[in-house]
Amino acid sequence: MPVYDDPVDAHLLDPSILRAWTAALVRGVGTPADIADDVAEVLLASDMRAIASHGTARLTQYVSLVEAGVMDPIARPVIVRERPALVLMSAQNGWGHHACRVAMDLAIERARTQGTATVVVRRSNHYGIAGWYALRAAAQGLIGVSLTNSSPLVAPTRARVPLLGTNPIAVAAPAGRFGTFCLDMATSTVPRGRIEVAARRGWALPVGWAMDTDGRPATTPEAALAGSLHPLGGEEASGGYKGYGLALVVELLTGILGAAAFGPNIVSLFSTHEGPADLGETFLAIDPGAIDDAPGGFERRLETLLAQLVEAPLAPDAPGPVLVHGAPEADAEHRAAERGIAVDGQHYRSLVALGERLRVPVPPSILRTASGA
Amino acid sequence: MPVYDDPVDAHLLDPSILRAWTAALVRGVGTPADIADDVAEVLLASDMRAIASHGTARLTQYVSLVEAGVMDPIARPVIVRERPALVLMSAQNGWGHHACRVAMDLAIERARTQGTATVVVRRSNHYGIAGWYALRAAAQGLIGVSLTNSSPLVAPTRARVPLLGTNPIAVAAPAGRFGTFCLDMATSTVPRGRIEVAARRGWALPVGWAMDTDGRPATTPEAALAGSLHPLGGEEASGGYKGYGLALVVELLTGILGAAAFGPNIVSLFSTHEGPADLGETFLAIDPGAIDDAPGGFERRLETLLAQLVEAPLAPDAPGPVLVHGAPEADAEHRAAERGIAVDGQHYRSLVALGERLRVPVPPSILRTASGA
Repeated sequence: MPVYDDPVDAHLLDPSILRAWTAALVRGVGTPADIADDVAEVLLASDMRAIASHGTARLTQYVSLVEAGVMDPIARPVIVRERPALVLMSAQNGWGHHACRVAMDLAIERARTQGTATVVVRRSNHYGIAGWYALRAAAQGLIGVSLTNSSPLVAPTRARVPLLGTNPIAVAAPAGRFGTFCLDMATSTVPRGRIEVAARRGWALPVGWAMDTDGRPATTPEAALAGSLHPLGGEEASGGYKGYGLALVVELLTGILGAAAFGPNIVSLFSTHEGPADLGETFLAIDPGAIDDAPGGFERRLETLLAQLVEAPLAPDAPGPVLVHGAPEADAEHRAAERGIAVDGQHYRSLVALGERLRVPVPPSILRTASGA
Repeated sequence: MPVYDDPVDAHLLDPSILRAWTAALVRGVGTPADIADDVAEVLLASDMRAIASHGTARLTQYVSLVEAGVMDPIARPVIVRERPALVLMSAQNGWGHHACRVAMDLAIERARTQGTATVVVRRSNHYGIAGWYALRAAAQGLIGVSLTNSSPLVAPTRARVPLLGTNPIAVAAPAGRFGTFCLDMATSTVPRGRIEVAARRGWALPVGWAMDTDGRPATTPEAALAGSLHPLGGEEASGGYKGYGLALVVELLTGILGAAAFGPNIVSLFSTHEGPADLGETFLAIDPGAIDDAPGGFERRLETLLAQLVEAPLAPDAPGPVLVHGAPEADAEHRAAERGIAVDGQHYRSLVALGERLRVPVPPSILRTASGA
């Protein structure tokens, strides 16, 4: 699992001050306080978990959407249609983070009585890391699933143009002494962020990550960024049609089921001129307690299985022990709580500039220490 | 998507005669007629869809389980515990195909009123192709999901021993003029059956399919069959930890949730001496009609998306147009209906021998034509 090293030009930011300041920035464009708190919470979770691409680094782009009138900062989600275990909501083009927090909470609440429940959100916007919503269910002892469609970046197997998003799948569950199992994966071989990192660091790309605009394997990050990503599995012979199928399943359960935008019809990421994103996001909560023989049985069984996996004899080239999904991110979270969130210089400067522009200046106490600044 | 060529020593069998005879064979070991009909139905669907590994080719092994007293041919599934949208059943160690048909029908029935429903089955046995159950929901206008755990064949990323099954994921949905979308995929790069085909045909294996007992890339089918399969994505750098995560999610939603056997604790495939399989299988049905703006809206939107995908400009090495999952299998089904089911000589001889042993001889009229026999 890819755990990013700290950037060489890291600034270490105090998590609680960054959270409060993020909420202030979000309020600064007219967002009600409770909605801003949800946005800040989800963005900070991403930064804490060292998923630098999906946290406060995106604030400037979100603000641009609000300023361009493309996203409505005061909109609140409403229920459009419902059955006891299946609810369709509309985010009414408001903040995705807030609408989806409300949606996952509703799925959790319904799962408590129905055993399981699914909530589909349409007319939504980006919701940050998929895993946050799944983790919210796991924190309450439930299995949580979180899915979203996204702008087209991935070429279906055999095609040479991007028609599907990296459509992530996140699943989380309580896992005893292993904390929380949390798989949070793009259905492409790598997310676009990995290619961007490769571009900044001058790496060549292995076959199976991406293709150029002519549909040939992209060997440079630049060719890949202009072309399209391969679905998980890479080429057809190595199972790429399965990743393509998974991306399609996520699309089917989000945009298609919720009558939101879908596939090639989704506007570019953070486009301020193509109109609202109208993304679809879907949340599933399952209450193992509803059918378990004894309280906590599910969690103990999962713990038993994970113990068997992490103790496995290793392959000769293994860089370390077998990992449980979510553990590297949880480690990053503890590290960030202790010594601060490491953000790179570009990221830090974008926040400072945004604060100046919105007249919500960055609190000087936010910097714990700075290295290489 | 891998569509197998006809075997060179193909026998063409009449589908309806093969179905009736299969049911007779299953009754021949004491199975009640209605249960035998379900078993025959699922096995025939596999043969018709050219998934030769999961159909009547397995009859001899199923019969061995019954004869060894490991599987109970007369057991019927019962509800163990339930909420409106989540039900736990026990197959009571009976035929998996029957228990799981009953489970999926219950999920469909509950989804009609609740919007969505999940049924988990424990103390179960092999259920054939995962896709059959998902297709059953799709035939009624619903989205169907079918999951099963299975004997350990897959090594978690970094490990060198098999600890997880090829744990398939099947998802189906009605898709207008595209018939039925049906993704039915092992969460390993390739299923074990592909390695067996490679062994019979003397192929070398690409890196990313399997590893040998020392945890090094297996280059021959023999080394792979003694070692373990890679999860979808292959090696860690190409996303193998995602396939590992998906296999784990399937395990979590089947064996762990249902308190069935799980992971390395599952007995070998068709073992007649290790005791009952105690597999876990999970079925989810979602009724798009419960939340759709207009009847048929979901299906029309899916059709629109699939039309955009199949019309995509192709990569230079594409062996054909972009495919919709399930279409090659549906084509095989039509072909089998017209000219008969093509089974190889070994498969046919095993059926003949089984019929002789159970005194339910193969009806001579079953052979439509024979080539190379």
